[in-house]
Amino acid sequence: MELNPNKRYVVGVDIGGTNTRASVVEKDGRIVSEGHRPTKAMEGPDESIPQIIDAIREAMDNAGVTADDVCGVGMGVPGRHKSREGIVLWSPNFKDWGGLQLLQPLREALGLPVFMGNDVNVAALGEFRFGAGKDVSSMVMMTLGTGIGGGIILDGKLWKGANEGAGEIGHQIVNPNGRLCGCGLYGDLESEGSQGGIIDRARRKIQLGRKTSLMHKVECNLDALTPAIIGEAAFEGDELALEVMQETGFWVGIGVANVINFLNPEMVVIGGGISRAGFVLWDPIMRTVKANALAEALEVCQVVPSQLGDDAGILGGVTLVLEEMESCA
Amino acid sequence: MELNPNKRYVVGVDIGGTNTRASVVEKDGRIVSEGHRPTKAMEGPDESIPQIIDAIREAMDNAGVTADDVCGVGMGVPGRHKSREGIVLWSPNFKDWGGLQLLQPLREALGLPVFMGNDVNVAALGEFRFGAGKDVSSMVMMTLGTGIGGGIILDGKLWKGANEGAGEIGHQIVNPNGRLCGCGLYGDLESEGSQGGIIDRARRKIQLGRKTSLMHKVECNLDALTPAIIGEAAFEGDELALEVMQETGFWVGIGVANVINFLNPEMVVIGGGISRAGFVLWDPIMRTVKANALAEALEVCQVVPSQLGDDAGILGGVTLVLEEMESCA
Repeated sequence: MELNPNKRYVVGVDIGGTNTRASVVEKDGRIVSEGHRPTKAMEGPDESIPQIIDAIREAMDNAGVTADDVCGVGMGVPGRHKSREGIVLWSPNFKDWGGLQLLQPLREALGLPVFMGNDVNVAALGEFRFGAGKDVSSMVMMTLGTGIGGGIILDGKLWKGANEGAGEIGHQIVNPNGRLCGCGLYGDLESEGSQGGIIDRARRKIQLGRKTSLMHKVECNLDALTPAIIGEAAFEGDELALEVMQETGFWVGIGVANVINFLNPEMVVIGGGISRAGFVLWDPIMRTVKANALAEALEVCQVVPSQLGDDAGILGGVTLVLEEMESCA
Repeated sequence: MELNPNKRYVVGVDIGGTNTRASVVEKDGRIVSEGHRPTKAMEGPDESIPQIIDAIREAMDNAGVTADDVCGVGMGVPGRHKSREGIVLWSPNFKDWGGLQLLQPLREALGLPVFMGNDVNVAALGEFRFGAGKDVSSMVMMTLGTGIGGGIILDGKLWKGANEGAGEIGHQIVNPNGRLCGCGLYGDLESEGSQGGIIDRARRKIQLGRKTSLMHKVECNLDALTPAIIGEAAFEGDELALEVMQETGFWVGIGVANVINFLNPEMVVIGGGISRAGFVLWDPIMRTVKANALAEALEVCQVVPSQLGDDAGILGGVTLVLEEMESCA
């Protein structure tokens, strides 16, 4: 199935553990329409692949376009892949996706060329082409959420790594005596700076008997704590919640400084749900970056929030297709 | 001054704080001759530039070649540069080299095209083309010595960074409560894993009153401790020295694992004087790497010692010239 650059639209798809979103997009990045489906990730590929196809078809229907109007489809997919071959090697929270040939059934159902990449790598591509990074040539993206992911773009090109594992910024060890991460490492950035670290930090402080508005917010049920609730309390001035955000921001800032010192990029973009906590997280991140990045490297590096937010993945999928066309041209 | 690819030889130069070494080299990396001069780095450029020229001329004389036989000269220079423009921005231990136009006087004196780069970046290029990395396409080099430096080669290309500061692998923070580094950071890899960290660790243990053969080796003068002496004692089975090497290897291993997890390269090459301590350092490094690198990334990554040793810089200088010719071809 060949890419036809004369067609007007591209479809970008963001496959998440819970929902799959698809959009028909103009080549300049303007989003024309959307389609959504629950991913049904835990019900296996036979359930989830049709959902992805339906989300794409819905987006195309909503835009009033057919396969004749679309150059191709690009998707961000959680996990580690052989993306050229269309094979998912491993994907967290997706039942039976290990070894799955994902692209073939989509190509056949849609009659279109389909491309894929790791979700955070793809989001970085989107942010680089259409968002915060559109005026730089090197950029590292970092997403703060359930985990901490990353994408590395150097000299205008995504560095995918020897077996498509590059950008695992969350698994750098910054505190060897620190928390245990889900990956098995102790004190990596993900264990200290992602959702688990934030909640754990708040919980421990509360268990010391300290006063906090958080207890009221979760009606004394600590299992209901979320980064969003803690961020809200911090924003309202709750001392304990502010401390949690400061401590979290410190570790994230160390991770950002390490990236700046090692790769000397023009930009670090911070995205993901937790990054939306605002100044209560951003201030300690930036203070730590300034204290720990080498002056000459920091001088040429902007540290900025994601511009595309939830659309980074979709526009990154679009970028996969556009880059493919450009490399063939 | 144009590069003439029809000439047979290339000159590689390794400018160190103490000595400058130059070699005439065949294009396949065979070293034909050598020239040496003390760099006189602390006596300013008026003294040190003629020394560099003399080292190069000596190498050419020893090989019996003239400028007519040489395509060009490539040099590794400590510090941060605008290498294209031939300007040294900052160089440690080189008096009055900040802002120095280094290439112009060399070009004029030699009548040859001359190229330069950061010394560790250049050594990485040499190791990549002619040494340990010659069969891979991505490689990170790490040099353990007075400081800890690095060079990043991805997809066959040196990543120099936005302002030629990439590869500062020593300034990643791995232990925020750790030692103070010369750069002003606390607990970066350089403070924990380089010469200063090794000596400081040994000294503290001795000051606790512990028995060690080191006291005899330095005739009770702790100021005479060096990594080489400590490594030798460890090799002979001295408990205290073994501990020092193990603790040092742990931190170096964390740094290597972080690089593997973040960049997913095919190879990490460890060089520099301290890397020659042998198994007493290598074993704890590798144990730590295995415990802290993500399995999928480690599976495709070799961690190996430098093959070129002291010649990495010279052969890296040669590589600068060869790459320049290839990019023009």
